Order: sequence, then structure tokens, then C-alpha cells
Amino acid sequence: MSTSFIPASELPADDAPPAAPDFGPAARLTCRECGSSYALGAAYACIECFGPLEVGYDYVDVTRERIESGPQNMWRYACLLPVASYAGDEPNLNPGMTRLVRADNLARALGMTGTLWVKDDSGNPTHSFKDRVVAVAQSAARRLGLGTIACASTGNLAGAVAAAAARGGQKSVVVIPSDLEDGKVVTAATYGGTLLAVNGSYDDVNRLCSELIGDPLTEDWGFVNVNLRPYYAEGSKTVGYEIAEQLGWRLPQQVISPIASGSLLTKVDKAFREFVQLGLVADTPYRVFGAQATGCSPVSVAFREGHDVVRPQRPNTIAKSLAIGNPADGPYALDAVRRSGGAIGDVSDAEVTEGIRLLAETEGIFAETAGGVTVAVLRQLLASGAADPAAETVLLNTGDGLKTLDAVLGHVGPTAVIDADVDEVTRVLTTP
Amino acid sequence: MSTSFIPASELPADDAPPAAPDFGPAARLTCRECGSSYALGAAYACIECFGPLEVGYDYVDVTRERIESGPQNMWRYACLLPVASYAGDEPNLNPGMTRLVRADNLARALGMTGTLWVKDDSGNPTHSFKDRVVAVAQSAARRLGLGTIACASTGNLAGAVAAAAARGGQKSVVVIPSDLEDGKVVTAATYGGTLLAVNGSYDDVNRLCSELIGDPLTEDWGFVNVNLRPYYAEGSKTVGYEIAEQLGWRLPQQVISPIASGSLLTKVDKAFREFVQLGLVADTPYRVFGAQATGCSPVSVAFREGHDVVRPQRPNTIAKSLAIGNPADGPYALDAVRRSGGAIGDVSDAEVTEGIRLLAETEGIFAETAGGVTVAVLRQLLASGAADPAAETVLLNTGDGLKTLDAVLGHVGPTAVIDADVDEVTRVLTTP
Ligand SMILES: Cc1ncc(COP(=O)(O)O)c(C=O)c1O
Ligand SMILES: Cc1ncc(COP(=O)(O)O)c(C=O)c1O
Ligand SMILES: [Zn+2]
Ligand SMILES: [Zn+2]
Repeated sequence: MSTSFIPASELPADDAPPAAPDFGPAARLTCRECGSSYALGAAYACIECFGPLEVGYDYVDVTRERIESGPQNMWRYACLLPVASYAGDEPNLNPGMTRLVRADNLARALGMTGTLWVKDDSGNPTHSFKDRVVAVAQSAARRLGLGTIACASTGNLAGAVAAAAARGGQKSVVVIPSDLEDGKVVTAATYGGTLLAVNGSYDDVNRLCSELIGDPLTEDWGFVNVNLRPYYAEGSKTVGYEIAEQLGWRLPQQVISPIASGSLLTKVDKAFREFVQLGLVADTPYRVFGAQATGCSPVSVAFREGHDVVRPQRPNTIAKSLAIGNPADGPYALDAVRRSGGAIGDVSDAEVTEGIRLLAETEGIFAETAGGVTVAVLRQLLASGAADPAAETVLLNTGDGLKTLDAVLGHVGPTAVIDADVDEVTRVLTTP
Repeated sequence: MSTSFIPASELPADDAPPAAPDFGPAARLTCRECGSSYALGAAYACIECFGPLEVGYDYVDVTRERIESGPQNMWRYACLLPVASYAGDEPNLNPGMTRLVRADNLARALGMTGTLWVKDDSGNPTHSFKDRVVAVAQSAARRLGLGTIACASTGNLAGAVAAAAARGGQKSVVVIPSDLEDGKVVTAATYGGTLLAVNGSYDDVNRLCSELIGDPLTEDWGFVNVNLRPYYAEGSKTVGYEIAEQLGWRLPQQVISPIASGSLLTKVDKAFREFVQLGLVADTPYRVFGAQATGCSPVSVAFREGHDVVRPQRPNTIAKSLAIGNPADGPYALDAVRRSGGAIGDVSDAEVTEGIRLLAETEGIFAETAGGVTVAVLRQLLASGAADPAAETVLLNTGDGLKTLDAVLGHVGPTAVIDADVDEVTRVLTTP
């Protein structure tokens, strides 16, 4: 694997040293395990220890004013991401700056006295937070001269990659487990590109993509969540940045995030820490909580049992977007949760459906299964005392209910089917 | 029917004249046919001539600066709507300020040389422009002391009303034709409230709701698109306001809108004219175009045949959200289109599906059938010369593809279903 991939198109004609691609404030890739540093490129694992690589920065001139004068999307944080300053001007879906909804009704239903907010990422262009990570990876693919963006997806990433490629004039190859929800398969297919459905689990799909990376067939491909993963993952920081800015440049006391690979949770924590370090917000304590479905709960189980390593599971849950049995960032999610004094919980599929309904009935927000997981786990953590009902809390809704209709189908439906007759309406509404 | 309904809760204790409810800059209801004026209330038809009533205003201090300093949602235009200045602070879904997407790829595919924009209202909280109209009607219901918000819906309004009521702490009664898409029925049902599915067409549903208005059962109900229709309809103006502001305070040369009842199209036109009259934009010429599905094309047929009246049809199209056979605002839509030098077209269901796919493949925007109608009609109007390919054009995408999956199901799908094997990927990608 090359640690610094310079596409032929960016090689200078004479024998001067090649110009480095422009990744803005990003300065290096650093191993999360042993700390080795590498030049920026399409690398993702440490040569010394196989640990995952993470982007390191030399930030300059990051101020509230600069951010506030930016566009109403995630590119207002370009100075904090591994992207060139002009990344937002290249064709992309311009995700981000989704609503932070004050959820007083839900707070009341959960018995909370502290303010509860829902960060509603279902408002993104393809209706999940994945548009954020893809936008950064799409930019990285451009800088590295990779013409095809590819991914292994549990569902939401599929649509996000296919849509971004369509708009960006790139090719896409999306690989999914063949048993995904219609709302995810059909959507991804409509955007065009190549869509490969694999007989197997997400973990099988992920392994296949890792194997494909060595193959000459994929020379021109950037797998957004494999070889472009260091860049991709940074996109999730914008969820944390937005929460802090939308709260009026301060941190909440509690934040609760769903966990699949564990990346989103760790990056929200990173975003909060960066804002403190940069002096953009006051250094107030916060706790990070994680949410999984019991049918795929490797990180939750490790938390409960006090382990640092995550034992893989074979997923079986309706929360397919979270169904990663072998989560790459599980240990880092555990670390962020423990360091901050948070907790991780898991809930049954029936509770997931209840969580979806509760959020819809109280706040008019129709979440996908991942959102149902997060609501139900918050309820559980409040009941057990692990989360504080008096603390200001932000709950992440990362996806849209329209993509997982099966989770509520059979539980909800019309109050009555009637003929077009006033008497029938009266009968239905006055019969208890 | 009462022309000025004052809820008991707003009646003063002594015998001073009752305080009028606060509708902000709105001053009266005026008959669109005979010009008779009425006090603001839950009235919608003229006592003299049965013509529809429209809100009239006395605008004060409407400036660009005031609007720009408002929130990033439709309430930035509160000073131009029939709402109290505090309407945006009451619990509601805060819709609006959706993306205006520059659509160079789609323009190229359509052979346009002028700039093409997509106003993407699928980014609203329940993923259609209906959140805007409901937000204004919800506020009117509060001012008028009506505790239940109700509607007759072709699909999108159902979810918008149920969600807004859930968040707003109001009751809801939503009436739909029983043959709507799963994505619309299930979504609406998940938000809670009463959902009545009627054996019949939307026009049957609409008639039933009109009959219900006299009934004591519904004393406390505001039917957003019947007795609150004058307020409701004004919400669509915000689509036009946002387009002009997002273009940098100027009007486009062409705008193309889907037509169901015809209200949205007329209100976008009204928004543009108001901005000119208020001096917020320069008075540059623009043309308004309308789009229908051939299977429900009463306004398009009237346009083609040069009629002022619209002959009702019995709808039969996959574009169910536009399936109003007897459109209340058809004549006014015809007028706006003719006055501005525009045109109206209609397209087959197969073209609707092609339109959805074209928008998704070029811009990564997955529209519902109404969006497919609009894209396909724009193509048709460009081909016939009715629309100018060199003119700056805004296309309205008013709804989300996830709600009408059936329109593309069977047309798109995975490229291949394979085993988790590198050789299978190679075979699929190298076999032409
Ligand atoms: C809707 C949704 N929420 C949350 C997640 C979790 O993301 P992560 O893998 O970063 O933990 C995913 C991942 O696919 C998702 O689709
Ligand atoms: C998605 C969508 N677009 C457009 C329309 C047309 O709206 P109008 O009735 O204002 O013409 C509707 C109406 O239901 C709709 O649902
Ligand atoms: Zn290492
Ligand atoms: Zn009249």
C-alpha cells in the first residue's frame, strides 16, 4: 500500500519535486495506535503496526467570525477539514447546517427537566448524515486524482455516494448487502452508477472491498470508507461543530449518538475537543453516550463487560444501518465514552419501533431505525441513571424514516377506512 | 359561514369590543372574483358571489435588511405573511430556506444555455413544500382558537399536517384517498392523530371535507386547505421569496411549477409581484410555466384549448400528489401563466419516471413524481419552443422520491447480485 499517492496528472513535467495535493489545513496522517506520521495520500493503515490513520492538522486563523461568514452548509468549517479552501465550490451536495430542534415534548415524555435538542440530520440532501462524510471523501478523491468513488454500505452511504458522484461527474461503485430495505436500494439505484448487491452481511461486503483495493481493476477507485477513510471520517466532525455553533458557541452537557462503526461518535467528541482547544467555546464538561440495537451490540457489550477490545457479532436487527458486527472504530468509541463519563446502551427491535413512534408523535420528526435506537437508548439510560435527566442533552437523528418504512408498517396505519360520507366520519370519531 | 370568527378565549371579560386576533400585516380577506372585503376570520368563500377569499395586507417596513436578519427558515418573511410577529416562536416545524441548487448537468442534458436552478423543497421537515402552507395555517388555527387542524390530502399534506400537529400540541384529522402510496400513508400514521382513508378520489375526499365544515362535530377544526385556505395558501409565497433572495435579490426569467390545485404556481407569481412592488427586486420580466401529468391535466388542457374555465377530469396517473381533477385555483393559474407569457404542458407517466431518473442522475436529487412531472414538462416546453433554453430558469422540486418509490421500482435496481468474491466483481465490471 502506498502512503503517499500522487496521481500522474499532478506530476510536474520536469524533475522538480511533485506539488503536494491541497488538503487545506491537513498536514499529515498519523497512526492512532503508534503515532507514526505519513504524508497525505490514499493511505489508511499504518505500515508499522496496521493501526488506523487519522488526519492531523496545522490550523491557522480559525475564528468564530470566519466560520459565521461562511455558507449555510458544512463548508463553513472548511478551515477545520482536510479539504482545499475551494472544495465547497466544486460540484457536491453541499450538506450540513441541518436543524437543531428544541424537543420540549420529547423531553417531557422522557421525564427530563434539562433542555433536550434533536440534531436532525434527516434534512441532508440524501436524508442521512452520510452526505457529510461523502462530501469530504469526494473532495479527497479529486485531490488524489481518483475518478471513481466507491463504498461498502449498510444503506445510507449507498445513496450518499451515488448521489454525490452523479452531481460531481464522477463514477461510482456502491457495494451493499443484498437484503437492504427497498428505500435504500431503489434510491441508490436511481442516482445511477454501479450498484453491486452481495449475498452476505455488511461485514462480508466490507471484507470484499478491502480485498478489491489491491486489485488493478480498482486502481482509479477511492473507497470512501476504506482507503479514503481518514478524510471521510473527518466529515462527521461537522455534526459536532454545528451543535456547538447552533447552541450559541457552547457545548451541551450530554450528547447521544448511534454507533455502527463507531466513527460518528468519536468525531463528534473530537469536534468538541477541537473547539475547546481553539478557544471557540468554553471548556465545559460534557458526556458522550452511545446507542446500539441489541441485535448488533458489540460495542455496547464491550462497554458493559468492561473490555477495551470489541468482540465481533453476527448482526440480526431491523436497524440495518447500524448492523456492523465488527466495528472498525469500536475501541475509540469506547474510549471517548469512558473518558467523558458517558455510557452505551442497546435496545430490542420492538423498542426501536417505539422510539421511532415516540419521536414522531412528540416532535413531528420521522426517523429511521437508527434514530429509533438512539431515542430508545436515551430512555433506557435515563431510567438506569446513567444519563442525567437534568442535563442539557443533544440527541442525534442521523437518518430518515422514509428509508425504513418496514420498521413501523404493521404497527401504524389509518384510524379507519370509510366511504366518503359525513355519517361515517361521525361514527368513527364518536365511537370510543 | 361566519366571516369573522372570534374564539371564546379571546373575548374580553367586560363588554368592550372584542380584540381582533393578531394576523400581523394581514388586514382583510378579499374576494378574488367581486372584490368584496371581509374581516379576518375562518372564512374562505365570498357571501356575495361564492368566489374564493384571499388575504389582503397593509405592509409596513419591509426591507431586505429586516428579512436578512431573520431566521434561516420561512419565518424570515413573517412580515409578508398573515401571521403574528411571534408565529415562528410557537411550536412548529420551521420549514423553508431550502436549497437553491445550480443544475449545470441537468441544463446540459436539456440543451439549455441559460442557467438552470432547482429549488429543492424535498429538504423541508416532512420533505415537501406543504410544510410551508401548513405552518401558516397552524398559526391561523391558533389565532382563531381552533384546537384541531384537519385536511384533505393528496399525500404530502397528510404528513405535513400530522407532523405539525404532533409538534404543535394540536389534534389532527387527516383525510386521504385510500389508494395512496405506502410512503405517504405510513408516514402520516406514524406522527399520530386521526387518519381517515376514504374509498374514492381526492375530489371525493375534498367534497367530504367541505360537507364536514357545517357539522357541529367539526366546530373546533381548521381544515387547512378548506376553511383556513386563505392563510394556508399564502405560505407558498415563501417559495417565491426565497428564490428571489437566494438569487441575490432578483427575479429569474422563467419559473416552472407543478400544478395540482394551482395554488403554488399562483403564489410564486404573487411573491415575485410583491417583491417588485415593495422595491425589494428590480422589475424584470419573468414567465411562469405549469406542469401536469397527462392522466390529470385539466389545467393544461384548458391552457391548450384557450379556455378560461377548467373542465374537471377523473385522474389516473402515478403522480398522485398532483391528482386533483377539479382544481380550485385552476383559473388563477391559467391567468398567471397567460399574463406572464408562459405555458402549461403535460406528460405521460413513463415520462414522469424518466424525469425522476434524469434529475437523480444529473444532480443527485431524488424527486417524487411531482418533480418528475416538472422536469419532463420543462423538457417538452423547451422542445416545442414554448420555453427559452437561453433564459435563466428555476424548476421547483416540491417533493421527495422516497415517498413514491413505486414510480421507479421495476425501472432501476442493482447492476448485479453477486457473492462476496473479487472474481465476481471483476466479471461484472469487465463484461460489457
Ligand atoms: C443512519 C445512520 N446512523 C448512524 C450510523 C453510524 O455511523 P458510524 O459508522 O460512524 O458509527 C450510520 C452508519 O451507517 C447510519 O447509516
Ligand atoms: C409534491 C407536490 N407538488 C405540487 C403540488 C401542487 O400544489 P398546488 O395544489 O398548490 O397546485 C402538490 C399538492 O399536493 C404536491 O404534493
Ligand atoms: Zn502505527
Ligand atoms: Zn365575491
